[in-house]
Amino acid sequence: MTSARHSALLVNPVTRSNPRRTEPLPAKYAQEKSDHPAPSAASECTPARILEVGFGFWGSKVLLTAVELGVFTTLGGRSMSAGDLGNALGLHPRGRYDFLDCLLSMGFLQRTGTGPDGRYSNTAQTARFLDRSRPDYVGGILEMLNARLFGYWNDLGAALKTGQPQNEVKHSQTPLFDTLYANPERLEQFMSAMRGISADNFAALADEFDFSGFNSLCDVGGATGLLSTIVAERHPHMICQSFDLPQVEPIARRWIERSAAAARVAPVSGDFLKDPLPRADVITMGMILHDWNLDKKKHLVRLAYEALPSGGAFIAIENLIDDARRENTFGMLMSLNMLIEFGDAFDFTGADFWDWCQEAGFRRYEVLHLAGACSAAIAYK
Amino acid sequence: MTSARHSALLVNPVTRSNPRRTEPLPAKYAQEKSDHPAPSAASECTPARILEVGFGFWGSKVLLTAVELGVFTTLGGRSMSAGDLGNALGLHPRGRYDFLDCLLSMGFLQRTGTGPDGRYSNTAQTARFLDRSRPDYVGGILEMLNARLFGYWNDLGAALKTGQPQNEVKHSQTPLFDTLYANPERLEQFMSAMRGISADNFAALADEFDFSGFNSLCDVGGATGLLSTIVAERHPHMICQSFDLPQVEPIARRWIERSAAAARVAPVSGDFLKDPLPRADVITMGMILHDWNLDKKKHLVRLAYEALPSGGAFIAIENLIDDARRENTFGMLMSLNMLIEFGDAFDFTGADFWDWCQEAGFRRYEVLHLAGACSAAIAYK
Repeated sequence: MTSARHSALLVNPVTRSNPRRTEPLPAKYAQEKSDHPAPSAASECTPARILEVGFGFWGSKVLLTAVELGVFTTLGGRSMSAGDLGNALGLHPRGRYDFLDCLLSMGFLQRTGTGPDGRYSNTAQTARFLDRSRPDYVGGILEMLNARLFGYWNDLGAALKTGQPQNEVKHSQTPLFDTLYANPERLEQFMSAMRGISADNFAALADEFDFSGFNSLCDVGGATGLLSTIVAERHPHMICQSFDLPQVEPIARRWIERSAAAARVAPVSGDFLKDPLPRADVITMGMILHDWNLDKKKHLVRLAYEALPSGGAFIAIENLIDDARRENTFGMLMSLNMLIEFGDAFDFTGADFWDWCQEAGFRRYEVLHLAGACSAAIAYK
Repeated sequence: MTSARHSALLVNPVTRSNPRRTEPLPAKYAQEKSDHPAPSAASECTPARILEVGFGFWGSKVLLTAVELGVFTTLGGRSMSAGDLGNALGLHPRGRYDFLDCLLSMGFLQRTGTGPDGRYSNTAQTARFLDRSRPDYVGGILEMLNARLFGYWNDLGAALKTGQPQNEVKHSQTPLFDTLYANPERLEQFMSAMRGISADNFAALADEFDFSGFNSLCDVGGATGLLSTIVAERHPHMICQSFDLPQVEPIARRWIERSAAAARVAPVSGDFLKDPLPRADVITMGMILHDWNLDKKKHLVRLAYEALPSGGAFIAIENLIDDARRENTFGMLMSLNMLIEFGDAFDFTGADFWDWCQEAGFRRYEVLHLAGACSAAIAYK
């Protein structure tokens, strides 16, 4: 039992038998890196990781709530006392220190001093990525997680038993995308959230895919035109079209105008469930295929095939699940998220993608890892 | 941007440009161990950890749901196909593989084969700690997290703004403990959950605190009598009383009867908000003080002082927050949980405890680390 007793649970132990004093041990929110899923030796059989993951939603919710309340945006480049920051955010005194010191111990705030003399400030990461006024803001997706998905995920059990979505649909009968596209403000929020988590992946694709043999690209479901502008900026010979619904065009136009390559990026309106795709040497779909069921996925693959010349490339950017379904936890969690959002939509492996592509007539296939859990699955006509 | 692009987000990358094949890289749910809160060098400024924690509730909810549905209990010592296991659990086909393969990739299941030929089984940890029929079951606390706290924590923002609890009270006006104590079945569930997460801490106290100078112990809020039986079993000279409300006595009696030291452990009924405590050389309170506001905490400290002889020890077992409030994330999260459960109740540092103890007349103080985030704060009269 010794190893169980001394293992850390989201925490460093208060220094043993050392009254009123704590050693400045390194913080360990992420727990020791365990070599699961390799079966542990008997001496390592403890419930520590089970409890760490089971309680994991607490820390997650603290961060999401901090983004919702604007902690990082309010701090900006300043340092503030718990009192001033709490007043600015409308926080009741009871939870101020617990909330801010949780964020501190998880590595999302810095602090000099303690108690009423303590002054809190952003870390390098939160200053850059969680201040709404900064261009690299990724909080849009966290706002969506907090406002919608945390609550809907509480019905994961029901989703697993019924195969039915557990989001707004449950109450309104209106599918997510219909609701989104009917409300310009929510649509722009959603697109901003997607932008924040896609930028690194699209930049990796622009840097690492060989565009030299191609002249034109059509990004299907292009939203704000992010992928098109990134590719056009880095490859001056490329002409790009960002294809999406007519409601999206004014949003895309505003974003594209800000790009140095705006002259080579055009928003194009259409509905990929009804219309053929614009012809292009490269067809990209960034986090599009996973939103649909098997029939619609295959339909989209066929549309891409039809729009490409011989030798053209079809690129799906997704949290592609590894073929053995053993490694890409985030891809499989995202697939459960598709269950909660849509029911029959799902994430998939590279092998699944290649099966559908072969059926449509594609000749060759490769996978290019992008950032984090995300890869480009690439099929050549 | 290179380090951002290649950092892992809950996942191992699908092997770069390697069609239809994935290297068996070690799984990394817990992400690389970062040295936060030390400010990172510019080259390490990525949003990876922000996104990992923000999305963290997904994996947490998958594990909690697996416990709720009885995945680990149904498997027991067997291996089962996704079809058989899904049928046994009443799972719709849509989510079966995503759900089970998520658990696999997070290290909570094992699998031989893939797809319809795959057979799932427990890991050493889930077989021992998450099968309801096993004595080391810790799933009680996870069942409570899933059934109650996941939903209530969705109102953390409201709790922080109002300082008010966000649990059953919000709807019924009846405080948690009143509801619990009015329902014998729920009371037993709650006590079983607490038992599961307390056993390691109580065993550590029994092993590491020097009981040689003491003959009697009273565990205040003793619930099932776990601490008393563990101390009595390991220290044959100790006589223990487990003090709790009259409703608890039949539950405690049943548990105590199973102990080899049952003859030296007695359940004693009383209400620590109204009655004095039984006299004893050692007074213990395991996860009791944190349930109350400052006035009631100080009242409990005074009661302990009054019940002890000179030289007697008052031991509070808690997720004691480090005095600098920088390290014990779990202790601070637990304090936010007390906000959600009770409003004005809170977790505390060793320094806070010692302040209250000095006010009551205690002379000396020490901290003994137990297991994980948990410590014993010990004051001597």
